[in-house]
Amino acid sequence: MDSQQFREFGKAAIDLVADYIDNIREWEVLPSVEPGYLLDMQPENAPEEPGDWKDIIKDFNQTVMPGVTHWQSPRFHAFYPTGSSYASIVGNILADGLGVMGFSWLSSPACTELEVVTMNWLGKLLGLPEEFLNCSPGRGGGIIQGSASEATLVGLLVAKEKTVRKLMKNNPSLDEGGIKAKLIAYTSDQCNSSVEKSGLLGSMKMRLLKADADGRLRGETLKKAFDEDLAQGLIPCYVIANLGTTGTCAFDPLYELGPICNEYDVWLHVDAAYAGAAFICPEYRHLMRGVEFADSFDFNPHKWLLVNFDCSAMWVKDGLDLIKAFDVQRIYLDDIKTDTKIPDYRHWQIPLGRRFRALKLWTVMKIYGAERLRTHIREQIDLAQYFAKLVRSDARFVVEPEPSMGLVCFRLKSGDKITKTLLENLTNKKKVFMVAGSYRGRYIIRFVVCSRVTKKEDIEFSWNNIKEEADLICTPEVHEKPKIPALQHIETINICEKSK
Amino acid sequence: MDSQQFREFGKAAIDLVADYIDNIREWEVLPSVEPGYLLDMQPENAPEEPGDWKDIIKDFNQTVMPGVTHWQSPRFHAFYPTGSSYASIVGNILADGLGVMGFSWLSSPACTELEVVTMNWLGKLLGLPEEFLNCSPGRGGGIIQGSASEATLVGLLVAKEKTVRKLMKNNPSLDEGGIKAKLIAYTSDQCNSSVEKSGLLGSMKMRLLKADADGRLRGETLKKAFDEDLAQGLIPCYVIANLGTTGTCAFDPLYELGPICNEYDVWLHVDAAYAGAAFICPEYRHLMRGVEFADSFDFNPHKWLLVNFDCSAMWVKDGLDLIKAFDVQRIYLDDIKTDTKIPDYRHWQIPLGRRFRALKLWTVMKIYGAERLRTHIREQIDLAQYFAKLVRSDARFVVEPEPSMGLVCFRLKSGDKITKTLLENLTNKKKVFMVAGSYRGRYIIRFVVCSRVTKKEDIEFSWNNIKEEADLICTPEVHEKPKIPALQHIETINICEKSK
Repeated sequence: MDSQQFREFGKAAIDLVADYIDNIREWEVLPSVEPGYLLDMQPENAPEEPGDWKDIIKDFNQTVMPGVTHWQSPRFHAFYPTGSSYASIVGNILADGLGVMGFSWLSSPACTELEVVTMNWLGKLLGLPEEFLNCSPGRGGGIIQGSASEATLVGLLVAKEKTVRKLMKNNPSLDEGGIKAKLIAYTSDQCNSSVEKSGLLGSMKMRLLKADADGRLRGETLKKAFDEDLAQGLIPCYVIANLGTTGTCAFDPLYELGPICNEYDVWLHVDAAYAGAAFICPEYRHLMRGVEFADSFDFNPHKWLLVNFDCSAMWVKDGLDLIKAFDVQRIYLDDIKTDTKIPDYRHWQIPLGRRFRALKLWTVMKIYGAERLRTHIREQIDLAQYFAKLVRSDARFVVEPEPSMGLVCFRLKSGDKITKTLLENLTNKKKVFMVAGSYRGRYIIRFVVCSRVTKKEDIEFSWNNIKEEADLICTPEVHEKPKIPALQHIETINICEKSK
Repeated sequence: MDSQQFREFGKAAIDLVADYIDNIREWEVLPSVEPGYLLDMQPENAPEEPGDWKDIIKDFNQTVMPGVTHWQSPRFHAFYPTGSSYASIVGNILADGLGVMGFSWLSSPACTELEVVTMNWLGKLLGLPEEFLNCSPGRGGGIIQGSASEATLVGLLVAKEKTVRKLMKNNPSLDEGGIKAKLIAYTSDQCNSSVEKSGLLGSMKMRLLKADADGRLRGETLKKAFDEDLAQGLIPCYVIANLGTTGTCAFDPLYELGPICNEYDVWLHVDAAYAGAAFICPEYRHLMRGVEFADSFDFNPHKWLLVNFDCSAMWVKDGLDLIKAFDVQRIYLDDIKTDTKIPDYRHWQIPLGRRFRALKLWTVMKIYGAERLRTHIREQIDLAQYFAKLVRSDARFVVEPEPSMGLVCFRLKSGDKITKTLLENLTNKKKVFMVAGSYRGRYIIRFVVCSRVTKKEDIEFSWNNIKEEADLICTPEVHEKPKIPALQHIETINICEKSK
């Protein structure tokens, strides 16, 4: 493919993407395919001969598109958003076009330095304490990781190495393996699966402490766990606080957890994967009160801040901790001294390779500007509030807990089973996509405002689908169709209310 | 930014990338900037107001471009290639446009299934044993990881979990922590830094065994290490064989290592990050003889197979091993059963999130077709051979070891110090970029054919720069400039030859 063909192919792809978003409401949010559909449609072997780009576009439309779940659709309310925007897509084109690696400064100075610049910009937008910023006098700084999972794991590994180092310095006769076997990590039972997985991956026992009734890990719970473990000769090493849990978007009180971690000299990592984006709006920063006690902080611009996956923004107070944990030197990498002001980012992360991810973060911040990013967050929260209002206007439903950020959890008052049926039926009808959660032992449906193109009418569309499905399942089974349709409504007994 | 502006911005970016590659020889391969240059050129804070895309292109050209190391330049011969192609860039545009996650089948069926399809295609193109393929009757399969580092770490963690499970099944009274502390990983002292790092990250002691004079880890060395460790009560757990070491592109003999790993029931992972791409050409497959003994195999299409970073292709013989090691279930992820035919890929990897990376692999294989991919590999190897021939035609130089794939290692006969000076001077002049290595205790310069647009004339350009620099430094220091320039050549004493 020569550059002229690329100009054609690339521009056709741009139009395809623009058309897709322009017409995204024409797609059912969930695809109508069975497992294995694409395996059947694609040949068993790679083509031998080169293909024409027009045929590839055709093939893409005919075979790939029918199997896509439309995460950018305003009827997609599952999980949390995965960010995307025009600005981000273009940033990535530039990054792919340059095709550089940024594992050291010399390997591509702009790649490292634009990451420093944008992570400073972003840290300031969030109102993070200055210590976390590369532009502060200390050794703090930000890095783009691939995911919150990776950031949690990086924090864990660094905390482990630091704890072992500290203990062995105080008592050189200690056995490293013996120390490692005693290290414990802590988080709440509301944590994301990726947090728990980091314990598995990093070989550290992780205690999932019981959150309070509001889904928050409280200081006294943590302190009790520390004391119990210390009494048994174990070593508290790492705490992951959740700002915006996946289930219900609850916020652990950092102002309670932080001082305890500091007192016990335990690394505190903050996982604000989804909700962290909201801290660009000052009115939400009270939810991270106590962040000054943390050692590391991570949130995903690739969730709610319009940057395409992957872009997980992590800040640490002391970059030297990372370098000490991760530095493996080789002659072919021996190109420049290591400092934390212009970091050799390979020592701040798990892989060696790293591409120019700062470009998409940069184009997003430049195209939107801070003010429009804030507007985006505020509008999405308003839309969630609007949805909650609609749900509350229907007596069959209850919204709980209180909506948080772009997430509204709700259920049918009449029981878990029928709520589950409601969700299953809606999923089968493919017009609206939500997933389940649980709250205070009850089965709930999670409704998240995900798509950046969501409007009030989209919320109404989703709500109407939910309401109509509730109308259907809240009707007792009628084995014989009533002869006079007009009477149907009168005969209906709302089992939702009755079975309560 | 509305879709109309995106059409303009996106198409301008396509043209920018096409122009960049069309004119890539106009750039010096290394940038002329000092550390901190971009921090000085960019404002301290993110803009408040939205920006115009034309200004962003201008800003990109004025501030980012001057700090780029041109990995796609045919004068870039450092490290190993980082893949890029027009086909791959467009594949990524489509993936970013859809903006889906593929952690489970339902989260986007096409995302999972196209990965199964393309990994089957690719595995067949490499001639991998059928057991590794998803389309075989067993539980084998392929997955796209983010990097070879990640794949090595995944293999290590799975091997660890499997070994612990096996030992505890045989003897339930054993202590898990105790077992883990005794596990040992093995690789050669020629391994990539990322391999060694996986031991650090995965908390497993890793022995870097001495490679033979040709840089290959031999079977007898491995067997001796196993026996030594077993005698000390340690537990051999994980071996990483290198097909194409970073330093000199040496190939460990799998046919020696494999049977020993099988005999001792130790997981064998093959890291063929760079060189694996060559196995699409049948004439190079003898270099992976014995691959049937391996448990996992990884190579990076994002290195030498024209796919943009990140796309690391990993196959395992038994996907269930991964699921057992990585499965952490949550209610909001409870959407479909787990099998290895249509995998829930989140259980095959470290992060939870995963984007539609198969699209770029698919567009590359469709646009090029297998035959042109093979031609690409063969042409690059021919170019490396051509470079070696040029070096050998100059008596001051020695090429060693024998060129392997796209890598030619060479040095000045007259010593390490002057070879180092040669490399430093060339780097300072920024016309050609190579990095150092070592071979049999000697300092060598690694010359890799990296750019996909490399032509014979580019090799000549690079060689001429090297030769001219050698002409300069192989001249004895002349404190007084000779009066008659024409005599200079005659008076020159080749210190390279003399000091040998």
